[in-house]
Formats: sequence, structure tokens, C-alpha cells
Amino acid sequence: VQEVRGKVVDSAAGLPDAGVIELSRLHRAAIGRSRSELTTPALILNLDVARRNIAHMAQHMSTTPAKLRPHVKLHKSPQIAHMQMDAGAIGVSTATVWEAVVMARAGIENILIANQVVGREKIRVLAEAAHATLITVAVDDAHNLDDLSAAATATGSKIGVLIEIDVGMGRSGARTDDEARRLATHAGRLPGLQLLGVMGYEGHCMLEPDRELRVIKAHAAMEYLLHVVDTLAAVGFEPQVVSAGGTGTYDITGRNPRVTELQAGSYVFMDAFHGNLVPDFGVALTVAATVLSRHDRLIVLDVGRKAIGTDLMMPRPAGFAGELVFLNEEHSGFDVDAACPLGVGDLVELLPGYGPTTVNLYEAYHVVSDDTVVDIWPIAARGYGALAAL
Amino acid sequence: VQEVRGKVVDSAAGLPDAGVIELSRLHRAAIGRSRSELTTPALILNLDVARRNIAHMAQHMSTTPAKLRPHVKLHKSPQIAHMQMDAGAIGVSTATVWEAVVMARAGIENILIANQVVGREKIRVLAEAAHATLITVAVDDAHNLDDLSAAATATGSKIGVLIEIDVGMGRSGARTDDEARRLATHAGRLPGLQLLGVMGYEGHCMLEPDRELRVIKAHAAMEYLLHVVDTLAAVGFEPQVVSAGGTGTYDITGRNPRVTELQAGSYVFMDAFHGNLVPDFGVALTVAATVLSRHDRLIVLDVGRKAIGTDLMMPRPAGFAGELVFLNEEHSGFDVDAACPLGVGDLVELLPGYGPTTVNLYEAYHVVSDDTVVDIWPIAARGYGALAAL
Repeated sequence: VQEVRGKVVDSAAGLPDAGVIELSRLHRAAIGRSRSELTTPALILNLDVARRNIAHMAQHMSTTPAKLRPHVKLHKSPQIAHMQMDAGAIGVSTATVWEAVVMARAGIENILIANQVVGREKIRVLAEAAHATLITVAVDDAHNLDDLSAAATATGSKIGVLIEIDVGMGRSGARTDDEARRLATHAGRLPGLQLLGVMGYEGHCMLEPDRELRVIKAHAAMEYLLHVVDTLAAVGFEPQVVSAGGTGTYDITGRNPRVTELQAGSYVFMDAFHGNLVPDFGVALTVAATVLSRHDRLIVLDVGRKAIGTDLMMPRPAGFAGELVFLNEEHSGFDVDAACPLGVGDLVELLPGYGPTTVNLYEAYHVVSDDTVVDIWPIAARGYGALAAL
Repeated sequence: VQEVRGKVVDSAAGLPDAGVIELSRLHRAAIGRSRSELTTPALILNLDVARRNIAHMAQHMSTTPAKLRPHVKLHKSPQIAHMQMDAGAIGVSTATVWEAVVMARAGIENILIANQVVGREKIRVLAEAAHATLITVAVDDAHNLDDLSAAATATGSKIGVLIEIDVGMGRSGARTDDEARRLATHAGRLPGLQLLGVMGYEGHCMLEPDRELRVIKAHAAMEYLLHVVDTLAAVGFEPQVVSAGGTGTYDITGRNPRVTELQAGSYVFMDAFHGNLVPDFGVALTVAATVLSRHDRLIVLDVGRKAIGTDLMMPRPAGFAGELVFLNEEHSGFDVDAACPLGVGDLVELLPGYGPTTVNLYEAYHVVSDDTVVDIWPIAARGYGALAAL
């Protein structure tokens, strides 16, 4: 159990290996301040809302056959991963081997890298990390299976494998029954690997704004995935793990009786984009900004493209009324009412259009409860293997 | 003079205060390797091309009345700033007070923060840094002038001030002659400030793809800026500094006989977007990627939106033929020829559509000369005040 309201020193001490990000004096000085007194841009995590979101998802998943394996690519935070584990998650999903290593060092057991791991150094890191905890990886290539097997054998570890199936997204994954069969057969024969099941990510359904259409598309994707499962079972491989889903389909794919694991991640923070899709969760992530300049109805804020993610949707005002006029590297401009009292020096907050590419821009969260900064949490799994300890 | 081909330890030693970013084992291990053997995603700086770009700009600026004050928001690197200074730059421009502090600590003198600095902590940091070096800031608000004056007085330093004029971009800056006059008069009366001149950034011209139209628009913007200069001169304030321009107008605004300083920055690296505008410079910045998956004509790379900037223009293949099909958080997909030999595990490179929001995603450059990694340079001025030393 994590004690989330500790001093910064305590949180760092709890994560000896992942805590290589030194917190600045500026960050430390924010603890105890109101959220309206921050030096901006600052990434604000509303802990009260995040806790409610985690509890809501845990309650939902307690009614489904599938278990939750939350994706950490959004938050990249061991503290939040531990909160999810404490609420019943069976492990976490990651997008990179670096996220997996940070989570493993922070004591998270049973990690799925829901992506291919390719390249000598990354496979070596994966095989070494697999000594301490079960790490499973998605595979869609026979030579990649050979490389994983060789690294596992060389380091004496065992790497879990899911055969990735393309369920209509058209990204990675086996395209045909035959390809899936060949990969499973090959994986089953290689030393150092543990063939656990299949993964099919219905990312092409996740973004469908029409709920009814999303249900139809997600059902079709899972029908295909389960058809492949049956095909594999017919040749003697019975998948223990059928991994799929995301926040956009948590109550669709998550309810499928044959899906064993759900990879939802965005539900913890939400963002403008996901808020439209699944209104059941609250917004826990905002970016604090300061008014740099005002002329007539235009306010210019110190939050631009280097401080807020713009993928899938542009940022929105949180707590004030205004229309985004422009977004530059270090500036955003909002058209506000002529009577709007905001002036140079005033603080406002913005709701990111897309959470994952916003969090990735910051070193740490300003963790807020009851509108006060109670802690600073490093975004420990940010980046690609540049952690000094690696 | 910087010795750019040193050991990592040496570059860090040369920057005792800015060198708070610990380099990872992974980064250090890359030195001496071919650019085609990197662990990806990796940001590659082609030092040979960057040197040629710096020399070309220096040669051009030696023929103009204006002096070069390169913008460092693109590279955020003290090493590159020193290369620019050695080639004749009179100082640097920055977008944030944090970039200014990192540059000041790395020994760069005479820094223009070409932006408003608003907020107690940021103004305090600015006033303290202004002890050691001349720091000038752009201002468009009377209360902001008061705050800067109070901080300079409290710390016993002097802050340079440029009155920012809106020359048509519609972002920050005084909107009328009268507003400019009032700001200049106010600044001239306040203690702790040194009123040096005006700044007018013609950002609305920078993106104009039609060269002829760009020339017309940039001339109009400078005509207005110089009209304001004349207005201020008529009330007794003769601006010493007239700061303007960027890479897109370097040979337009840069040739204006009354512009004293040019703020161009993107010329050092270039990118797909700027390459279309000013073909006189070479591309020095690429991102190395690994093929994660291949099916038929689709290759999936491990470089997505968390590893390459997408602002203004999407990334392009560098050195292979393919069309971008999708760009997700950790993946990009390219449609390649059926005969293209690229397969899982192969390395390719991508040309960023936009440099500044690409660099900002990385901890360090892989500095390459003759296709070999010769050094690792930290992106020391990345982020917002989170440097442990601050």
C-alpha cells in the first residue's frame, strides 16, 4: 500500500531505483500551496477525482469476467500504478520496455508490454527484467520470437508471449488465421518463452464517437479475435490470456465473457477527447497557465504545444469561458468575453484534448487534493531508456 | 571555443551548472557506434550539416547591418549556442526564463527572452540571473513593467526591456502607437529597468509558403515596426535595439537596414516545414526508428507522437521511400513498395515535420559526424524550471 500523502523525500525513498528524477526546488516549493498559486506551466493531477475514477473502474470490473490490467502509457507513474493495483488490477500494460522496467523496479509484478519489443538492447533489457517479475510481450513476427528466445535463454529468464492479432486496426498483428497458427506453433517450440495467449487491440473502435456504432465495431473485432482463439485451440493451443480493450470500450469488450484482460488506461485522468466517449469518469488532469498578455478580447497564455498535447483534440478552457484562437510553441490564445476579468498575471487551467501526449511533456505531477498541492510525483517512465540508472 | 568532439564526461564538465541531466548508460554506450546501430527512438544531430548551416548563416549576416541573435528554443543546447556564438552571434534569444537561466549558467552572455515573463517565481529567477549577464525581456503590459522593476530593485540587478509591438501576428505586443508610447514612457521612469528598444515578431509571415508574398508581408510588418520606432523617437526615446525576424525571413527582415537584430533559430537544424521555405540550409536533425512489424506494404516503426513533433507538418521518410499512413503515440505506419526490403529489426530515419516540438521530447542528442556518434549532448534547457539545480 502506497502512502500517497507523504513528503517528496518519502515518495522518492519509496522508489529507490525509479527515483532518478531529481525534483527541483521549484517543484518542492509548491507543496502546501493552492493550485491557483503555481508557477506555470504546471501539470495538475486531481487526486480526489483520480481515486474516484479508479474506484469506479474497479467496481465495474468486479462485475465482469475480465480482469483489469491498466495501461500505464498515460500516467507513467509508479504511484498511480500502485493505486490501481491496490484497487484490484492484476498487473499493468505498458507500451515500451522502458515503462516496463520502471514499473518492475517500483515493485509492480506481472507486466504486459502490449507492443512489439524489437532491437538488441531493448530485448536484452526485457530479458533481464523478466528475471524479477513476469513480463509478457506481444509478438507478430517469427524472427522476433527467435530473438526473444535467444535473449531469455542467454540470461536464464522466461519471457511471456501473446500472439498479437490484427482485429481490424491495421497496425501490428497477424493478419490471417494461418499466420497466427504459424506464430503460435513457432513460439511453443522455442526455449525461454512461455506462450500465454493472444492480444487484439480494437483501436479502430476506440475513437468511434457514436456509441451504438462503437458497440457494433467492437463486437465484430472481438468476434474475429475469438474466432482466431478457436482456430488455435483446434491445433492444440488453448490461450489462457485473451487481452483487449481500452477506456473507449471498457464496458463493451470488458463485458465479453471470453476476454480475460482489459487494457484500459485513460479512465484514470480522462481528457476532452475521452470525456466525449465515456462520460462515466471525471477529469483528473489539467494544465495550469498564466495570462501573459491581454488585448481586448484576446488573452495569451504561457501554455503552448510544448506544455499540452494536441493529438486527437485541441485543449479547452477549464473553469473559464473562451475559444481557442491559436496554439503556438509557448503560447495559446483564447477569445474571451469583453467583460471577462482575466488579466496579465492571472492563473487559469486548461483541459488537455489528449492526456498521454500531455503528461509526456512534464517531469512531474503537482498532486492536488482539496485544491492544495499535497505531493509531487515524478513521471518516472517518461522517455526512452534515458533513465540514468539504466 | 567549445571542443565538440570530447568525451561525454568532458561536455558535462564544461557545463557544471547546466549539466544536471545525468546521461544514461544507454546513451553513453552509443558513442563510437554507427548511426545505423542505435537503440531507437533516438534523436540524431548531424554535426557536419549543423556546422555548415551555422557557417552559411554567419556568412550571410556578415553582409547585413543586422546582427544575429539566434533563438535557442529549437535546440535548447548550450553546446550549440556556443557554436553559434563562436560564429559571431551577439547573444541568444530564448522563449522562456528557464532557457535563459540554462544559457546564462553555460556562460552565454547577453540574452533576450523574446517573450513576456509573468509570475512571481519566474520574475524572481529572471532578476537573479540578470546579476551575472545582461538579460532583456519583451514587455507589453504596464503592471508587468512594475513587477519587473520591483524584482530588479529588490535584487539589485538591472533588467533590459524591449517594448513588444504587434506587427500583424495578433499575439502579444502593443496594438497602437499610443500604447507603445505609454509603455515606453512608463518603462523609462521605472528603476531597475533599462529600456533598450522594440521587438516585433512577424510570425504571421514566417509560414507563408509563397516567397514573393512572404517578402511583401514581411516588408509591411517591418514598415509598421519602424513607424512605431519613429513615433517613439518623436517623444524622445531612440530605440537602440530593433529586434525581429526568423529563419523564414532571414534574408528579408535580416536585410532591413534599420533592423539591428535577427532572431532566426530553425536554420541550424531545419525540418520538413522550413526546408520548403528556405532551401538554403541542410537538414541536420533526424529521428532513428526501428521496424517493429511488417505486413505486405505496411511497415510499422517505433517512432510515434511521443518521439517526433507533428506541428505544422507530419514527419517524412529520410533515406527510404514510403507514405505516412498513420501516426499513433508509439507507432508510425508507412506504406512502402512491395519490393522494399525493409523488415522487422531494420533501422530507418525520419525527418521531423517540425524541429522544436521534436527536440523537446528528448533528453539528449546523439551527435553524429561522418555517420558515427561522436558525443551525447543533453537538451539542457528542456522543460519548465524542473532542473534540479534551480
